[in-house]
Amino acid sequence: MKKVEVVVVGSVAFDSVKTPFGEVERVLGGSASFFSIASSFFAKTGLVGVVGRDFDEKFVQLFRKKGVDVSGLEYSDGKTFFWKGFYDFDLNIAHTIETQLNVFSSFKPVLPSAYRDAPFLFLGNISPALQLEVLEQMKKRPLTVACDTMNYYIEREPHNVKKVISHSDICLMNEAEARELFKTTNLVVAAKQILLLGAKHAIIKKGEHGSLLFSGKSFFFVPGYPLEKVVDPTGSGDSFAGGLLGFLASQKKTGGKSIRRAMVYASAIASMNAEQFSTRALESASLAQIRKRVKEFRKMTEF
Amino acid sequence: MKKVEVVVVGSVAFDSVKTPFGEVERVLGGSASFFSIASSFFAKTGLVGVVGRDFDEKFVQLFRKKGVDVSGLEYSDGKTFFWKGFYDFDLNIAHTIETQLNVFSSFKPVLPSAYRDAPFLFLGNISPALQLEVLEQMKKRPLTVACDTMNYYIEREPHNVKKVISHSDICLMNEAEARELFKTTNLVVAAKQILLLGAKHAIIKKGEHGSLLFSGKSFFFVPGYPLEKVVDPTGSGDSFAGGLLGFLASQKKTGGKSIRRAMVYASAIASMNAEQFSTRALESASLAQIRKRVKEFRKMTEF
Repeated sequence: MKKVEVVVVGSVAFDSVKTPFGEVERVLGGSASFFSIASSFFAKTGLVGVVGRDFDEKFVQLFRKKGVDVSGLEYSDGKTFFWKGFYDFDLNIAHTIETQLNVFSSFKPVLPSAYRDAPFLFLGNISPALQLEVLEQMKKRPLTVACDTMNYYIEREPHNVKKVISHSDICLMNEAEARELFKTTNLVVAAKQILLLGAKHAIIKKGEHGSLLFSGKSFFFVPGYPLEKVVDPTGSGDSFAGGLLGFLASQKKTGGKSIRRAMVYASAIASMNAEQFSTRALESASLAQIRKRVKEFRKMTEF
Repeated sequence: MKKVEVVVVGSVAFDSVKTPFGEVERVLGGSASFFSIASSFFAKTGLVGVVGRDFDEKFVQLFRKKGVDVSGLEYSDGKTFFWKGFYDFDLNIAHTIETQLNVFSSFKPVLPSAYRDAPFLFLGNISPALQLEVLEQMKKRPLTVACDTMNYYIEREPHNVKKVISHSDICLMNEAEARELFKTTNLVVAAKQILLLGAKHAIIKKGEHGSLLFSGKSFFFVPGYPLEKVVDPTGSGDSFAGGLLGFLASQKKTGGKSIRRAMVYASAIASMNAEQFSTRALESASLAQIRKRVKEFRKMTEF
């Protein structure tokens, strides 16, 4: 069996989503779901998460089929995390109707021993305290630690969010979160604050407007892929992170142009994800299709 | 005397502007002012506009010093167009306190005869009917006609705005205007509508998020330059348009990679403009500084 190279800790959920292009009920959702499937295109990825007894076995089969290692998926008595939301015509904004944390509310992630020396670790949308606990479970400091967060923790424990950033190599945030955490509208200022906390790379995700990478004094930009039809943007940020870490793991390094290329692969996967509900686009995508889109990104920025 | 290659019709104004970084009163403003100074870095540019008897002679001297041909600047009895506004910490949004159209309200642009065979014509923020009248004053159809518009005309006469687009080669619009004119949140859909109207190139300006170019099936993207301090974004869209047309005129063509390179020069100038109030940054900028920023754009998108 292939050794796990990327570990992700985050949520696994049932999502009910309505967008101008349709509606789905209790489909696969959660940050770790999108991340692990996206990352698995490039590197063996282990998922650490929790589900309830109601979790659908077909989703576990789906993870396995996509190459995700699910030995870190814990079953707990109770119901699986459930999120219900909708998007209006402005598909940049998710409106929450209902959030049932269920088994996720008492989740204490425990990394399988086979995960504890993985070189790439992604600390997804769990509390900052738990993110740090997960990091401490690793046998040694991974080659690359990346973190994400949520407005929920930024509002309640900004100090702890910053502590996690200071322990990370790559910090990913969306535009609104970065503005909120650092109390500035200027994303350059926010990114510099992330670097000052100690992260080597600050990545700001801007949805349809693309994403920014700040590494020291170097700046890199990837546009949003010009989609004429955004069916469901849920999970695109997590797919981005999965593509990023997975690609980096496949390169076995993060320096030089690797992280720039990883950003483009991540953008390609994130845009594909938004073309269908839930993880459907990622399920049917091939590496060749991803590479084709990466080539389009190159054409889109050449002058 | 050098022949005028680029003609711009638009507003010349006094602006009073307040931003988080300071405040200025009755400084040079107006779309044609920013456009003509930016364009003059690359090509002889003639300005068609109107001012009142109160207009400051030092601004006319400034235009001349920057190489702008002002034989199309008309003096009319009355006061110069005056705009007063402010920006909050979100510098993407201009808040208007006062608009006095003054002599601009009865402006009937008349092109000097020396302008009437210029190869590049920019139809700035005057009414669509006047834009078409200006086009008819040209001896023959210019090599390249570019147009811009304003939400004011989009709301009152969308049909006429579309008519002007159908007579243009390049249509520039900001994000909000494009969404409003074509009643869609999706910019790809809006851009395709512009091309369907007959323009060869649709350019959507997104402020700090950069700009998009759609030409047939080809798509190009330029990021916003990462400014840590945006002092005053007034006129950056017009500086962008001036840089675009001026650069194209200097290349004597719009095909191939010319328009992509022009977009990058335009973005460089637009970002420089936002670093100081009014036209101050453009006044002191050199072509070498613009080229240096263009090189930075190349570095920012290479992977």
